[in-house]
Amino acid sequence: MIEVVPPRPAVVLLSGGLDSTTCLAIARAQGFTPVALSFRYGQRHAVELASAAAVAEALGAVEHLVVDIDLSRFGGSALTDDIEVPKHDHVDELGDGVPSTYVPARNTVFLSLGLAWAEVLGARDIFIGVNAVDYSGYPDCRPEFVAAFESLANVATAAATEHGRRLRVRAPLIELSKPEIISLGSRLGVDYSMTVSCYDPDGEGRACGRCDSCLLRAQGFARAGVADPTRYRDGAVA
Amino acid sequence: MIEVVPPRPAVVLLSGGLDSTTCLAIARAQGFTPVALSFRYGQRHAVELASAAAVAEALGAVEHLVVDIDLSRFGGSALTDDIEVPKHDHVDELGDGVPSTYVPARNTVFLSLGLAWAEVLGARDIFIGVNAVDYSGYPDCRPEFVAAFESLANVATAAATEHGRRLRVRAPLIELSKPEIISLGSRLGVDYSMTVSCYDPDGEGRACGRCDSCLLRAQGFARAGVADPTRYRDGAVA
Repeated sequence: MIEVVPPRPAVVLLSGGLDSTTCLAIARAQGFTPVALSFRYGQRHAVELASAAAVAEALGAVEHLVVDIDLSRFGGSALTDDIEVPKHDHVDELGDGVPSTYVPARNTVFLSLGLAWAEVLGARDIFIGVNAVDYSGYPDCRPEFVAAFESLANVATAAATEHGRRLRVRAPLIELSKPEIISLGSRLGVDYSMTVSCYDPDGEGRACGRCDSCLLRAQGFARAGVADPTRYRDGAVA
Repeated sequence: MIEVVPPRPAVVLLSGGLDSTTCLAIARAQGFTPVALSFRYGQRHAVELASAAAVAEALGAVEHLVVDIDLSRFGGSALTDDIEVPKHDHVDELGDGVPSTYVPARNTVFLSLGLAWAEVLGARDIFIGVNAVDYSGYPDCRPEFVAAFESLANVATAAATEHGRRLRVRAPLIELSKPEIISLGSRLGVDYSMTVSCYDPDGEGRACGRCDSCLLRAQGFARAGVADPTRYRDGAVA
């Protein structure tokens, strides 16, 4: 007798970077039917959206939405403003504290939109690829944040309060280091050459090699013992 | 000796309706220096944004931003989709439960964007004009929701976690009935003829008189003993 398992839809926040791509692969591997949600939020590295589209297709997202939400209207971040993205020659030079690439309330905004879509779809699960270990000092990449958002989701929505659908915010990378994420994704067959992590890529998505995100990514590949497939600009190597 | 009180900025979510307008007046009366935040979110009653602009100016908001965020991409609501807005002949006919005009996760999305702006401005306070008494059955108009979002805000932002700015979500209308809101706003000098509450107004902002919002508003003016300044369409009276 064949057991019929109903599809389990899940919304996966997908930037087109290394972490969210791995997160999508995990959602698939866990048996979810994922839809992918990306944002054009005024980021200077909007070329990542082309990666997101390619990744969504390659990893079997059944739908991919790109929503416009112009966070640059509020200002306050090197990722959306004319503030320079910090560059370093080595990963050990990364500063403590919250860097200027922090976008105020970004993951709160993104999860709230993921929640809106999940509610309409009847999905109980929202995946976000945050990780607290190499999190660059962002407050909205910590377990406390994920737990607080999940609590909110379960009082904020008719899905939960009227229809008894307990919502889950799943952050499967939260306790993993970058090398662990890369190792896991590689085992799941992720092609990381499709992903863009750089905060300041050129128009073709080639990485600068010197922003926090490039340096953490390159260190991750090195420590995972996986060849780094990143396309760097001429002369730039992280 | 003159005591110099530093300005206390606050973000006020402003739809241009009766409740949020009263909320802005309260923020001013409490000594805050308000900025107003409105959303073009795909609502069929986008004419309310003209009201919001007029109200923001009349009530002394020092800045007014209208942010585009297309919630109709997700669907699922009579306010953003081609689903008919429910109409009734009398306020007693309003149904129980969450009506089709509920927009999934709307107040979560709006507060998250208010939080983003508050963080950039250095504001500690975000005002939202929800009320739980005549709340039309929306889950994101209840005290539990407001408290959960405030908890989230204080783990989600560098403002709170790095800079020790405890954030407050203020919902001064939450325990008030519609007549109490109208009485309070009238004492604060609010001109309600500037506001639009109708879910299905015509192009000039004239009310249908028969949607849930019109019926609750009209009942509120009647019970408050305040003349109803609403502009209704020809033949429409709530």
